[in-house]
Amino acid sequence: MAEQSNLKPMLTAAEVNALMESVYPQLNNQFTFYEAIDVFPGGCTVRLNAGERHLRPGGTVSGSSLFTLADIGGYVCVLSHAGPDALSVTTNLNINFVRKAEAGPIDGHCRILKLGKSLMVFDIDIVAGPDGHTVAHATGTYSIPPRKSFQSQA
Amino acid sequence: MAEQSNLKPMLTAAEVNALMESVYPQLNNQFTFYEAIDVFPGGCTVRLNAGERHLRPGGTVSGSSLFTLADIGGYVCVLSHAGPDALSVTTNLNINFVRKAEAGPIDGHCRILKLGKSLMVFDIDIVAGPDGHTVAHATGTYSIPPRKSFQSQA
Amino acid sequence: MAEQSNLKPMLTAAEVNALMESVYPQLNNQFTFYEAIDVFPGGCTVRLNAGERHLRPGGTVSGSSLFTLADIGGYVCVLSHAGPDALSVTTNLNINFVRKAEAGPIDGHCRILKLGKSLMVFDIDIVAGPDGHTVAHATGTYSIPPRKSFQSQA
Amino acid sequence: MAEQSNLKPMLTAAEVNALMESVYPQLNNQFTFYEAIDVFPGGCTVRLNAGERHLRPGGTVSGSSLFTLADIGGYVCVLSHAGPDALSVTTNLNINFVRKAEAGPIDGHCRILKLGKSLMVFDIDIVAGPDGHTVAHATGTYSIPPRKSFQSQA
Repeated sequence: MAEQSNLKPMLTAAEVNALMESVYPQLNNQFTFYEAIDVFPGGCTVRLNAGERHLRPGGTVSGSSLFTLADIGGYVCVLSHAGPDALSVTTNLNINFVRKAEAGPIDGHCRILKLGKSLMVFDIDIVAGPDGHTVAHATGTYSIPPRKSFQSQA
Repeated sequence: MAEQSNLKPMLTAAEVNALMESVYPQLNNQFTFYEAIDVFPGGCTVRLNAGERHLRPGGTVSGSSLFTLADIGGYVCVLSHAGPDALSVTTNLNINFVRKAEAGPIDGHCRILKLGKSLMVFDIDIVAGPDGHTVAHATGTYSIPPRKSFQSQA
Repeated sequence: MAEQSNLKPMLTAAEVNALMESVYPQLNNQFTFYEAIDVFPGGCTVRLNAGERHLRPGGTVSGSSLFTLADIGGYVCVLSHAGPDALSVTTNLNINFVRKAEAGPIDGHCRILKLGKSLMVFDIDIVAGPDGHTVAHATGTYSIPPRKSFQSQA
Repeated sequence: MAEQSNLKPMLTAAEVNALMESVYPQLNNQFTFYEAIDVFPGGCTVRLNAGERHLRPGGTVSGSSLFTLADIGGYVCVLSHAGPDALSVTTNLNINFVRKAEAGPIDGHCRILKLGKSLMVFDIDIVAGPDGHTVAHATGTYSIPPRKSFQSQA
């Protein structure tokens, strides 16, 4: 796969987790569930520690829990690579569910496909289980709001 | 838009709500939030009563809350039109977020594009606010498990 | 479905067809195949006159012919509603194929879900046959390049 | 990324090209343009030799040419891994266009995310240029028709 070797993260996983906890209070009570575990040039790894509350009929992790993991993967990419502007928003997300996932750690390997001035496109491989099978795959787009220049705030 | 006038629901909105409450306990504690408000031939209307817990940074309803509404719209369609088999699963969902939505009632107008033996394809217009603007639009696919034949249960 | 009643087209179907023929020479030799047949506030109707060349194994219209119709539907919407700037480009397109379509006229009913300054989101119902069944449904996004102001060109 | 190391192709790239040429006559006159260049366990590489006819306004390769490459990537995967049943059809394809591509060879690196009995899900990285940048990325689903048993044909 093509690499985006020119990209450089500005924040670590720990810094992104602290930032999300601060700007996103509604995520707080779920915060031991969703977290960034790595940030690297051109991507990140995020984790859902899936428990009972994330299950749906059939005993598998719900689509909306996996959607949230995919969305957080993109959010961590945009926060870490485009700067900590919490107001970036998802404009599109497409997700395919390919296998059932049971409760336990579920990892999202997220890759930036394009980082432009106003849009970031990413994909994410969501894997689970002892064999690391893909359980879902998503692609999405974040809209990046124009940055307020420091001068203009002076 | 083309109509699927040959489709006929087998369950009412109240029956679907009761069924979801029974088979989907994890949704129970959110149950005053997501509900079916209408089921009609070829589609349904679902509602999210969005409160503080559904908001994200910027004070708007989170993508994952709207994803869940879209997914539930498809689930209500498949339960009501293909029969109350709770094990149907989403295989694909694509969602576009086009406007910010504030807390309050958010309605999803859901339409079956195809109901086959093993797949159901739907789309959903998610509207909010006094002017009923589209805030998101999604299309998705549910996989319908093979029905157990009556003989084999004898 | 929610209407975008505030939108007003700037070009007619005939004007859009003439514009596409002029800026898009590669489409020329296919031009009796793809055409705009109506432009109205918030949307348009486009048509593919599908012949032998548009078929795939099984004798049905190929996915790429229907993709092209969906893409042209969005293009006609952006040209007619955002202005005749031929350099708008598709950034995302998601298409579901739900029924086989045979050779003959295939109509795409296209609706603008959002017209912003830099993005237009649309969906399109593609219908065919004597009963007007949906054969495919797509949603997509066009990126609209910043308009050059008239002053800056003086 | 997770590997599907248990998958094993039944056909080589040359065999798939010969098969496509035979079952898909409409592709024939474009056949030096689209071709399989490799088939390996769990995926394939396909190439578009993009020329003048594949360009759109702005001098870049058209979205529909890239869509066709993505679709052929999935088709080669399904033909080579699920067996040479030409009647498999695309049910969903989602494509993001992230950079302009100029005329020249454009490669699609295609990976099977899931190969089930009735569905195959794949993604494809489409790269071009001397630096091998991603120009588009797609995910899609092929429906695999039930195989006719040999007995029933006797």
